[in-house]
Amino acid sequence: MTGLLPEGFHDRLPPAADAVARFEGRVLSVARSYGYEQVDPPLAEFEDALGRRLKAARAQDAVRFVDPVSQKTLAIRPDMTAQVGRIAATRMGHHPRPVRLCYAGPVLRLRASDLAQRRALRQIGAELIGLDSVAAVREVVTVAVEALAAAGLSDVSVDFTLPDLLDALAGDTLAPEQLLALREALDGKDAGAVAAIDPAYLPLIEAAGPFDQALARLRESDVAGSLGSRLDGLEAIAEAVRDRAALTLDPTERHGFEYQSWVGFSLFARGLSAGIGRGGSYAVVGEDGRAEPAVGFSLYADVLLDAGVGADARRRLFLPFGTPAETGAALRAEGWVTVAALTADDTPEAQLCTHRLGDAGPVALG
Amino acid sequence: MTGLLPEGFHDRLPPAADAVARFEGRVLSVARSYGYEQVDPPLAEFEDALGRRLKAARAQDAVRFVDPVSQKTLAIRPDMTAQVGRIAATRMGHHPRPVRLCYAGPVLRLRASDLAQRRALRQIGAELIGLDSVAAVREVVTVAVEALAAAGLSDVSVDFTLPDLLDALAGDTLAPEQLLALREALDGKDAGAVAAIDPAYLPLIEAAGPFDQALARLRESDVAGSLGSRLDGLEAIAEAVRDRAALTLDPTERHGFEYQSWVGFSLFARGLSAGIGRGGSYAVVGEDGRAEPAVGFSLYADVLLDAGVGADARRRLFLPFGTPAETGAALRAEGWVTVAALTADDTPEAQLCTHRLGDAGPVALG
Repeated sequence: MTGLLPEGFHDRLPPAADAVARFEGRVLSVARSYGYEQVDPPLAEFEDALGRRLKAARAQDAVRFVDPVSQKTLAIRPDMTAQVGRIAATRMGHHPRPVRLCYAGPVLRLRASDLAQRRALRQIGAELIGLDSVAAVREVVTVAVEALAAAGLSDVSVDFTLPDLLDALAGDTLAPEQLLALREALDGKDAGAVAAIDPAYLPLIEAAGPFDQALARLRESDVAGSLGSRLDGLEAIAEAVRDRAALTLDPTERHGFEYQSWVGFSLFARGLSAGIGRGGSYAVVGEDGRAEPAVGFSLYADVLLDAGVGADARRRLFLPFGTPAETGAALRAEGWVTVAALTADDTPEAQLCTHRLGDAGPVALG
Repeated sequence: MTGLLPEGFHDRLPPAADAVARFEGRVLSVARSYGYEQVDPPLAEFEDALGRRLKAARAQDAVRFVDPVSQKTLAIRPDMTAQVGRIAATRMGHHPRPVRLCYAGPVLRLRASDLAQRRALRQIGAELIGLDSVAAVREVVTVAVEALAAAGLSDVSVDFTLPDLLDALAGDTLAPEQLLALREALDGKDAGAVAAIDPAYLPLIEAAGPFDQALARLRESDVAGSLGSRLDGLEAIAEAVRDRAALTLDPTERHGFEYQSWVGFSLFARGLSAGIGRGGSYAVVGEDGRAEPAVGFSLYADVLLDAGVGADARRRLFLPFGTPAETGAALRAEGWVTVAALTADDTPEAQLCTHRLGDAGPVALG
């Protein structure tokens, strides 16, 4: 069976592939309207340079091969964010900050992950490099939610997290091993274990859930004092999208946010258990080793499209054999998709047509 | 210098990457309007299955790696046409013919070629599987020329060739080694060598150049008798695009058309020496080993885009710090690309803006 593909690799057939193109077109269109300009890095790069910019786990997922031209090892990108960071830090390093960039393309991974069961998948996103302020995060979250709405997903939720919250709270008061134990206890929502380390952290377990309620609990708790400005910032970010998305807060959630700095977010669509994207603030390392702040988001279109999001109904007009070229051109100019019979025995049914050109114009087929 | 990329690999930066997306969007839009639906095959497949569908030279160009999941060798696609053929022959094998498909995406090659100096490049095209009749080729050539026009290339030329012409002419009259010698003599436009084999083939050397003139010479020659229907077919194909493209004919040109059957064509744009695409009739091998006819074309966007085709002027509106969100939304709804200042000291110049929002609306800068 020559049609068989490796596990985690899929063909997208009609009409799903058109839906992918439409989805990405709409997402990029919103990003562009906010000034995010597209970059298109190559599928492969020198492994060492790319690996330095990837999370360790991600770097291990990259397909590697020896380049016969350079005799060096190249890696196929398992993620595009690292490439966008490289471009911002190197070729666009001289560009005044912030730099706004967007991207879309296929990535390849040796292993599937929770977020992506596919190993060949499409990534699309936007990154703002040079700032990670409240204003910057507000803009990026707004673009993400608006892009999803433009792509037909109006029922989305944003789950915020504060990845370095514990570090900020604990300061020097906890030994490294205590901090680690506290993280694990919080990850497991284990109140007993948290209380055994320090009852002051108990409110963090309760402060997970619907955004306003969770934020209010955090504010009421005895940890609020040291978090004031951070909570004000988060509230200002939420304010920008609260009329367009359901909001939740899980302040100590760290899974998948190991490289985020002060704020992270996951994007969900109603009816889909898998997340459809994520984002947050992070650091891009420049040529000189200096880190600069950044914030961005990535969407994994495959999750959405596998669920049938964005699939428009086909509308195809059959042109009987011998229809003059000008007639077809006029109908296409009106917006029709025309399918011309190239033989006398072709039929609208064989060509999956919804309409047929009759003497008086297009006729809908039952 | 971490920004360095391997030879033949390039980043496309703003505004060029936006131009790529725009170019591909316009090309696919024309193909879709003729009923060609998009397919999106994965970046990699089992090497043996993909290799069987690639020209031998192309298969050697594929990046290979061992898949840790299947323990088999996979190959990154060096060409998408082979994948589209596989889809048509396998997963869409049950679909009534003809099947019309289009595609766009990156491909990766270990070695650069004449047509593509890049090793990481973008391919875009359309394929009609199940027919290679005059009507089928007419449609495909029309879509190619119209797609290029929609993408802003109105000054294109189509160079037709008849790849199996010599076989058709010679029939059993020439021994295989004579046929080979004749091909080489014709490729070299070596009239003496051609005459030494058989002077009857001399008109083929003269019959290269502007389409009408070359076709008339072929018709006048003593080879015309056995070529009648083929020449009539070619003329009917040319008729479909002669008002939108300059046409030439090089009847015995075979370079790059080794896998084409009765007709092939190269696409050129005025001012660019490199070809921008090619197409023709060929055969797709089904699961059962049976070959079916097909016609298609591929465009290599990089050639065009490296030459600056499709680069629109930037038009970006700077929103001073503190501009209300609703104001920005209203301007984007009017079609503006807005770039919001996220700090009080940001400037229109730093953000490459062409306009600035003043009290009375957008003001052109500079």
